[in-house]
Formats: sequence, structure tokens, C-alpha cells
Amino acid sequence: MRETMSGHTGQMYIRPEEIEKRSMQIIENELRRVSSRSFDEHTAPVVKRVIHTTADFGYADTLTFSEGAVERGLEAIRSGASIVTDTMMAMAGINKRRLARYGGSVICHMQDEDVAADAKERGLTRACVSMEKTAQNGGDYIYAIGNAPTALFTLYDLVREGRISPRLIIGVPVGFVNVVEAKEKILELDVPWIVARGRRGGSNVAAAIVNALLYQL
Amino acid sequence: MRETMSGHTGQMYIRPEEIEKRSMQIIENELRRVSSRSFDEHTAPVVKRVIHTTADFGYADTLTFSEGAVERGLEAIRSGASIVTDTMMAMAGINKRRLARYGGSVICHMQDEDVAADAKERGLTRACVSMEKTAQNGGDYIYAIGNAPTALFTLYDLVREGRISPRLIIGVPVGFVNVVEAKEKILELDVPWIVARGRRGGSNVAAAIVNALLYQL
Repeated sequence: MRETMSGHTGQMYIRPEEIEKRSMQIIENELRRVSSRSFDEHTAPVVKRVIHTTADFGYADTLTFSEGAVERGLEAIRSGASIVTDTMMAMAGINKRRLARYGGSVICHMQDEDVAADAKERGLTRACVSMEKTAQNGGDYIYAIGNAPTALFTLYDLVREGRISPRLIIGVPVGFVNVVEAKEKILELDVPWIVARGRRGGSNVAAAIVNALLYQL
Repeated sequence: MRETMSGHTGQMYIRPEEIEKRSMQIIENELRRVSSRSFDEHTAPVVKRVIHTTADFGYADTLTFSEGAVERGLEAIRSGASIVTDTMMAMAGINKRRLARYGGSVICHMQDEDVAADAKERGLTRACVSMEKTAQNGGDYIYAIGNAPTALFTLYDLVREGRISPRLIIGVPVGFVNVVEAKEKILELDVPWIVARGRRGGSNVAAAIVNALLYQL
């Protein structure tokens, strides 16, 4: 097998680029068997990368895209849009070097002192206040939300009030309380969105979706 | 409902501590229905926190513990052990403030320049070389591996060669190529381990397991 090589004690390793290629082939083959949905050239790479990140083919059924959502996301990144997240984990997982090529960066206000103080005073979550903070600049960001349903509820309110104009909302929190409901609210919005319906999702899924966009450019 | 309060436009929010409590209740109830395995006071919080992080009850079947693994992990943290990860995402997800109370910190060599150079020269993965690097200090760390099967293969070799003495190996990479095999190798080792058998896992799962240990202290 030409693609293998010896590790330091004879353990056989496969080169990383070969692993990625084989993984994607396995995902494509299994995906055809387990899902009857068809994806286009823009949505397929997103679905495949989320499965690559989670080994969970259930996302083939739960990932939902507003009309042209991926294309709008690609346009946004190309024009230098930055990405707002609700966790440091999502921030860590996004390919920031690739994003910087187009002028964007990743923003997370969750650790900001003013956010913590404001949240405490008003009895709100930090996720909620950190989304409000983005409205100061018009909120024309890509929002990648993998954790907090309250972040999605707040984005919903801010969009309906005309205080932010998201280029794309990636709504993929994980959890058991308010998560399903928060994601369903986003489906009502007239802005581009990518949502993982149901309980599953996570910061890793949010980062994977952003990276799937970056790798299409 | 006393535990709810109004958000800025009347959206009802539940307090974060209440969400966590309710989520864990839901998980406990469903867990009894979907899994016939029983967990003890040490393993149950780990399984529940991983499900809390992923909404995936399959972990009740795949999470596997060597005898006393959680207790050994708790002792290690209490005595100031540091935690080695294979991704910045896992590092971001671990509660570093809580870990610091006991004297430990989180270490990730994946971005080190010497690791990148050495990996390139020898045709190995950075994950492999970054695990080797920990042997310089005897490797008496907790290893939390959520991404790279080659990290696990290397840990296996290093343990067998007597070059490292892990306090605990958390082996939970996700993926389709070499992942299942790498995790099965760890089960052969005579060091404490927590492994998610099968394809699933991830940096979020690795961080969740570390945090489940921290929250037991």
C-alpha cells in the first residue's frame, strides 16, 4: 500500500490527506444508503463535513438550509464578513487562517467583562447579552451558534426588531431544554440560515459548518 | 413558573443553572429506558455529561472504563496532574480555571514549531510527534485525545516501551479510518483508560469527560 509509512515503532500510519480522502469516500457511500435526501453542490459538502466531524449520519436528515443559504454564506465570507460565535470551542475549531485570507475574523463576546456584568445585572444569559452587543455594528455577521439556545432566541428578536442583518445564521446548539424550540424559531426568519433540527449539534458542528464553507472557496 | 424571567422583548428565558438541572433529569430518565448498563457513582456522571454534550444516548453503550479509571483520574487531578490534548478545541472546552485550583494546566503541542518541523521531516503526523514530546517529562499526564487516532497509536507504543506513564488515557477520537482500531489498542494497555468504542467521539467529548472529572471533585 503506497500510501502507508512506518511510524517510530513499526506502527503503520496513513498520511492525513489520504485519511481525509478515504473518510469522505466512506461517508459518500454510506450516505447514499442511509438517506433519501439529495443535496446540491453547495449543501453536500456541508452535510458531509458535519458527518466527518461527528460520525453521525443523522445530520443528513436534520440539517436544514434556507434557499441559497450556503451561497449567501460564501458571498459573505468572500466580502470579508466576520463570524460571531457563542463559545471559545467553536472559535478554536474554525480555520481562522483560511478566514483571514478574505479579511474576516472570529468574534466571541462571551468572556467580555461588560457582557458578564450586564448579564448579571439584567438576569439574562451571557449568550443573550453577547448577541445584543453585536447589534452595535449592525450585526451583518455570520452567526455560528453551537451551544446556547438563548443566543438564538436573542438573534430572533434582534432580526425581527431590525437591529441586526445577519449574512447567515448557523443555528446548531445541542441540548435538552429550549434547544429544539430555539432552532425552530430561526426557521421563521427571512435571513439565510442553516439549522440542525432536533436536539443534536454543538460547537464542533458549528465550526465544521463554517469550515465547510471556507473549503468551498 | 418561578424559574423563568422575561428577556428584552418578552421572550421567556430559563436560568442556566435550572437548564443544567432539568437537562440532567431528562438524561437520567431517558437513560434508564434506553440502556440496560448500570453505572456507579464515578462513571455515571461521566456518561451523563457526555450525553449532555452530544444529545447522543449511544455513548451509554460505547463508553468503556478500565477498572477504577475515574478514581485514578480524580487522584491525578487532585495531585496536580496536567492534561495533554491533541486539539485546541478540546483545550478550549476544558474548564481550565477549575483545573488550576489543583495545580494542573492544559497542554497542547500541536501548534509547536518544533513539532511541525519534526513531523514533516519524519513523515509522521503532528499528533504523533506531539505525543512523543510529552515523553521528555515521563508523560505522567492525563491524555485527552478527541481527534487523532495516530495520537493513540503513539501513546500505545510509548506506554509499551516504558517511556510514558499516563495517569489516565481518555481515548475518544471520532472518524472513519483507523479510529476504531486505535481505540481498541488502548483497551489492551495496563494504564487507566476511558474509551468511546466505535466511530464516535470528538474534541467536545474529550473535554466533557475531563470536565465530568473536575465537577466530581
